[in-house]
Amino acid sequence: MLPITRFSGMAPGRSRAVRMGKLIYTVAVADTHEKDMHRQTQETLAKIERHLKEAGSDKTRLLSAMVYICDMALKPQMNAAWDAWVDMDNPPQRACIGATLEDPHMVEIVAVAAAAD
Amino acid sequence: MLPITRFSGMAPGRSRAVRMGKLIYTVAVADTHEKDMHRQTQETLAKIERHLKEAGSDKTRLLSAMVYICDMALKPQMNAAWDAWVDMDNPPQRACIGATLEDPHMVEIVAVAAAAD
Amino acid sequence: MLPITRFSGMAPGRSRAVRMGKLIYTVAVADTHEKDMHRQTQETLAKIERHLKEAGSDKTRLLSAMVYICDMALKPQMNAAWDAWVDMDNPPQRACIGATLEDPHMVEIVAVAAAAD
Repeated sequence: MLPITRFSGMAPGRSRAVRMGKLIYTVAVADTHEKDMHRQTQETLAKIERHLKEAGSDKTRLLSAMVYICDMALKPQMNAAWDAWVDMDNPPQRACIGATLEDPHMVEIVAVAAAAD
Repeated sequence: MLPITRFSGMAPGRSRAVRMGKLIYTVAVADTHEKDMHRQTQETLAKIERHLKEAGSDKTRLLSAMVYICDMALKPQMNAAWDAWVDMDNPPQRACIGATLEDPHMVEIVAVAAAAD
Repeated sequence: MLPITRFSGMAPGRSRAVRMGKLIYTVAVADTHEKDMHRQTQETLAKIERHLKEAGSDKTRLLSAMVYICDMALKPQMNAAWDAWVDMDNPPQRACIGATLEDPHMVEIVAVAAAAD
């Protein structure tokens, strides 16, 4: 039975990251309450990066990313933060949809990555 | 070539669970037509548990869960059912967004788990 | 460290498919700007199939599919295209939700498959 490593989330009953074998699942939202899509995305991606590091990976090993945003009209601001952050030589499969998020969150990102070890 | 095991869904062309190697993908909605988020979530989670059992896993081996709800104002009722159900020592990475679901469904859950064998 | 193979997407910073070990993650939208859910779904699924082939798999090895559509009232048209396309002996776990997509896209599909080699 392959061991599972869990990294606690903000609330009980959720993990911010889970690793099984070489696969890592993680999720992040920004801490800021500021209604700025670019800044929230930067913060969310920085958190994803910290979660990946804790679990033994990094952004060059992302496999898949699902980006949920509160307003598709703000996708360009999200994309600007994404493009500045992602490793252009190693981009994940990515999709982005508009959905209802919990206030004050404007963006939430769920990602799957491969372990680096 | 790793074998894939499929567990038939409610309609042709969909599986309620699929297993490949140690990974299990599953989805559930409640059968009830009653418009009660708490009860629908309880029923959905009970189904996820049955699907995991069929595929050789259980809720202590969940890796990731994506919760879609029809109305974010009802997230507390969903969370109450989640918190009562989830193994607090082994919670998955989880995200929840508001989306349009097919009536009468108020919640739909997609999960990835690791096999227990 | 397991190698990751990436297949470039339409824009820099995104891959249309990523393979790690036996797992393949892919995403597709239709190229057509025609507002026809059935035709867009056919085109999206044909693309998924091409992406899977490039990455060493095919639709009989799909594990999971997430279908995002712009209007749940059009789910029957999406389903008609799905049912004509999917391998009825080997269907993936599938879920479909209504979400906001980027115009002119009416459907977007994210899928996970197992490699055939």
